[in-house]
Amino acid sequence: MPSQYPPSLRIHLPAFILFLEAAFILIFVFFISYDHQSVQNDLAVYPAFQDVNIMVILGFAFLLAFLRRYGFSSTGFSLCLAACGVQWAVIVDGFLFHFSDGQIKINLQSFLAAVMSIAAVLISAGAILGKANLMQLLWMALVEVTVFAVNRWLAVDILGIKSHTSLMHVHLFGTYFGLTVSWKLCPSSLSPKVEKERSQPVSDMFAMLGTLFLWVFWPSFNSVLIEDGREKQAAICNTYFAMAASAVAAFSLSVATSSDGKFRMTHIRNATLAGGVALGFSAPIIQHPWIAMTLGLAAGAVSVLGFAFLQKRLQLALWFHDTCGVHYTFGFPSLLGGIAHIILLIIDGREDLSGMAYSTLSELGAFALSMALGLIAGLVTDNAYNSGLLWILELLLFLPSPLPPLDTVSVQPW
Amino acid sequence: MPSQYPPSLRIHLPAFILFLEAAFILIFVFFISYDHQSVQNDLAVYPAFQDVNIMVILGFAFLLAFLRRYGFSSTGFSLCLAACGVQWAVIVDGFLFHFSDGQIKINLQSFLAAVMSIAAVLISAGAILGKANLMQLLWMALVEVTVFAVNRWLAVDILGIKSHTSLMHVHLFGTYFGLTVSWKLCPSSLSPKVEKERSQPVSDMFAMLGTLFLWVFWPSFNSVLIEDGREKQAAICNTYFAMAASAVAAFSLSVATSSDGKFRMTHIRNATLAGGVALGFSAPIIQHPWIAMTLGLAAGAVSVLGFAFLQKRLQLALWFHDTCGVHYTFGFPSLLGGIAHIILLIIDGREDLSGMAYSTLSELGAFALSMALGLIAGLVTDNAYNSGLLWILELLLFLPSPLPPLDTVSVQPW
Amino acid sequence: MPSQYPPSLRIHLPAFILFLEAAFILIFVFFISYDHQSVQNDLAVYPAFQDVNIMVILGFAFLLAFLRRYGFSSTGFSLCLAACGVQWAVIVDGFLFHFSDGQIKINLQSFLAAVMSIAAVLISAGAILGKANLMQLLWMALVEVTVFAVNRWLAVDILGIKSHTSLMHVHLFGTYFGLTVSWKLCPSSLSPKVEKERSQPVSDMFAMLGTLFLWVFWPSFNSVLIEDGREKQAAICNTYFAMAASAVAAFSLSVATSSDGKFRMTHIRNATLAGGVALGFSAPIIQHPWIAMTLGLAAGAVSVLGFAFLQKRLQLALWFHDTCGVHYTFGFPSLLGGIAHIILLIIDGREDLSGMAYSTLSELGAFALSMALGLIAGLVTDNAYNSGLLWILELLLFLPSPLPPLDTVSVQPW
Repeated sequence: MPSQYPPSLRIHLPAFILFLEAAFILIFVFFISYDHQSVQNDLAVYPAFQDVNIMVILGFAFLLAFLRRYGFSSTGFSLCLAACGVQWAVIVDGFLFHFSDGQIKINLQSFLAAVMSIAAVLISAGAILGKANLMQLLWMALVEVTVFAVNRWLAVDILGIKSHTSLMHVHLFGTYFGLTVSWKLCPSSLSPKVEKERSQPVSDMFAMLGTLFLWVFWPSFNSVLIEDGREKQAAICNTYFAMAASAVAAFSLSVATSSDGKFRMTHIRNATLAGGVALGFSAPIIQHPWIAMTLGLAAGAVSVLGFAFLQKRLQLALWFHDTCGVHYTFGFPSLLGGIAHIILLIIDGREDLSGMAYSTLSELGAFALSMALGLIAGLVTDNAYNSGLLWILELLLFLPSPLPPLDTVSVQPW
Repeated sequence: MPSQYPPSLRIHLPAFILFLEAAFILIFVFFISYDHQSVQNDLAVYPAFQDVNIMVILGFAFLLAFLRRYGFSSTGFSLCLAACGVQWAVIVDGFLFHFSDGQIKINLQSFLAAVMSIAAVLISAGAILGKANLMQLLWMALVEVTVFAVNRWLAVDILGIKSHTSLMHVHLFGTYFGLTVSWKLCPSSLSPKVEKERSQPVSDMFAMLGTLFLWVFWPSFNSVLIEDGREKQAAICNTYFAMAASAVAAFSLSVATSSDGKFRMTHIRNATLAGGVALGFSAPIIQHPWIAMTLGLAAGAVSVLGFAFLQKRLQLALWFHDTCGVHYTFGFPSLLGGIAHIILLIIDGREDLSGMAYSTLSELGAFALSMALGLIAGLVTDNAYNSGLLWILELLLFLPSPLPPLDTVSVQPW
Repeated sequence: MPSQYPPSLRIHLPAFILFLEAAFILIFVFFISYDHQSVQNDLAVYPAFQDVNIMVILGFAFLLAFLRRYGFSSTGFSLCLAACGVQWAVIVDGFLFHFSDGQIKINLQSFLAAVMSIAAVLISAGAILGKANLMQLLWMALVEVTVFAVNRWLAVDILGIKSHTSLMHVHLFGTYFGLTVSWKLCPSSLSPKVEKERSQPVSDMFAMLGTLFLWVFWPSFNSVLIEDGREKQAAICNTYFAMAASAVAAFSLSVATSSDGKFRMTHIRNATLAGGVALGFSAPIIQHPWIAMTLGLAAGAVSVLGFAFLQKRLQLALWFHDTCGVHYTFGFPSLLGGIAHIILLIIDGREDLSGMAYSTLSELGAFALSMALGLIAGLVTDNAYNSGLLWILELLLFLPSPLPPLDTVSVQPW
């Protein structure tokens, strides 16, 4: 992509954004109205909705703010991606899950699913932070939200996975989507200078603020969609214990693996969250707190060890570049959580072998599907942008000049 | 005002603050007690109350923190204004709305109205940030809270406006009050040096933090006072969509209007909030999400365009100086929201013409009243300070020396 | 302690942390399971639990972040202490309060008590900030959580204090524990250079962020454990008024006591919280808002005056060093609150003299107990570390070399 940016993004970008918003509004005019039958439920879920909202809008934005020169890019672009993405996610989810009689009825649950889908976009944005302009990021968000909704629809309607579980694939999907986009977008020979990737104490503190918000509210993220009271309580408590254990693992292994015996802020910031990610699938069904703690400890350990030993090597071997290390914060712990989920299902279902085999295979299928769709969609995003989007834009906006280079439109660097 | 500050604010300011607090406590002793009949309702509204509380105390404080040299002034002074203002607002609201049998019964709803009134004070403080000392700000807060409560009383008891809607005038009232105070306080010839108005990357990040808090919790602000479940749900969802649309407008038009094709943080920070402001009046009665989105988009556009094309010109033409640009963040969107509210009322009431005419005129009257009272009270604040407050202080505190100049008491600049 | 640190903390620290976590998991395997009978109550209390959680994890962490060179230490170490401490507190509280039939049933109330106990640890950490490494802090956390749980058990089971009140001793206990640890750890001759204790504008802003979080959510802290609706409402409203009054006192007296007529951020940051601390014991039983306001005003005044006149003198006279001034933020206001609580109990109980005498003496006993245990445990922590912990570690981990000096492991200073 980078080679294709000519100097008029200044005209294309605002036109594209306004065109998107106009399209959203038109679709809402014809298809979408409020569902007033769920008022009681909506108002009951509202406090937890706000927890998730603040995690996604504020927590992820500041988690990505650790780069010295991209503080505003990370917080500002995250807000823009979230604002566009939520509207698009409501539309796509509506057509796939709630379309009947030519109408889509939405309520606060629709917002919840939309906001949680945006987490995938922000995770992917973490992988390509500092390497893409807002136009590319927005296009990525549209493609990613669409494919993730299709992924959820396949998992729920074809494989019979619970809706809650299908949304927990957000970490896995977001990671692998982001990694392949990063791979296509930025071969390592073109990767940003190391100088640009430095953090500085103040930006580290802002990132720590984002981490703490995510850490505190993750139990809400893993429990908000669960309807059964007992499972909801288990999800809250299990996630809390897993977060605590993964924070402990992060501190311990950060010292152990560093060459000078000091903590690495990158480890602390990211590995403390691994417990919540790993618990995504199985938080409501884990019966004993020690299982959650063990899983959280393992997730934190995998995350730190990935950062410490694999990051440099994978970067060289596979030529992909992962600015925020989302592979180790979200990818590995989510893989671990998926495996643990399958094992727990097998153990729980020992008495009903056929049922167990069916549910295990469904979960496994949904898991593989998320990963495969994430990888493929990430590859296609790039080509679709170059052939499709530019063509549409030139047609729609009557602007003959192609898109400008990255530097013209980027925010002033800090 | 500035010319009248002699060198002993150091004695007057603490004495004045303590005198205020003593007066508050005395009034509470004689008139105010708790209303234990609303316990259930109070506990149910508490989570949303905390959302609004964090918006006003933390969100506004950090939104104003973008000036490089006034970070502590903005967060510290906001806290002091909020702490004094809330107590005074509980008293004034109590006397106007809940006074019976010589007693005022207060509950969490009283706090809510008080905290929301403080938003007006903090909006006004945004207009005169860096130009007033704490003594002037406190005096302004007392006058503003009083006049705003009178305004609400006239709107609710005389014009028959709903209590919820009357509190939504807070943006309009705060803006025009602040602008006239700023006009009297600081003619443009005396306006702060441009150097002092610069932001810096770190202060911009703190301001972004404030913005994100306000963005996330604005649905609570627009819905917390609504009792009908269905209207509350509509207010939450409509506000969320409008915030998203105004964020989109802010990003699009910020690039389009800037001379170098870069985003302006000022636009992003402020215009993203315009949607919530514009929805204040009509959030609960809008039936279709696309209307909320269109209104939010228009509000964001108006806000950015105001910043881009009017700020410099109005500053020169009218000799007023608006540090934070509250005119474009809160004033214009609120005007737009008021007009949209009137239009919606007219469309909704086509079948009952007389009822429609009455309610439309009431809303229009309340709207004009807020604006007029805001403008007049802002003008009077200054004179009242010079004649009234100083005279009272000298009498009460037996301090013959007049007030000191601004520089003596201000916080150390950063 | 400091003289005993040889150069291998790099091995000991990760081993110790992992050993702790393994021990926690083992204890959970054998003794701890979920209590599914309290599901309804748990889900109802969850929003307030999140308020307290964010206060302790995020508010305290950033409150301690004001030192220029210890921003990461304060936020990072706080997270590690909280993550370890919460698990240990659930265990100790479980054995003391909920152990029956060889099993401990835990629910969200257990988390709440654990998170609130961690406040004591973070207050103590504030007193020794910058003077201890993570190993010492973790050991301190384990001892402190244990002794505080024993203290609560004595107060609740022997003296008959309410469980809610026993948790409010957290400020008093944490302060005096921290002060004696600080006294043993760091005689004033060895105290950190003044240069290291400087704040800088940005770190002050982060600390202000922590303060505002604590300020906003303190009503939740003082009310979350109260079950009676009417008392809960009173606790919320009283705490809010007291916080407002102590903020007013902080601003007033900060100017009055400073030599140059400027605000001191240290005063504002800490004394604004004094009202909430002072109300801890009596928030639910105060009938009139003016009493809460007066108590808050007095607490804020005591806190600022302590900072202004006692800090330097006590530091010289008693040879103890209190980095964050927790003595004045939490110690004095808590003492004042305890005395006020006793007086209120005496006034309320005039009609039933024997009952009044009994409850007054219990409260007084619990109060003295917290202070005494805090002081003694703080003294013992040091010796226990030197004799006990090192011996255990060497035995368990087969590591013959003793612990390394402070500098080797500390985080990179800012």
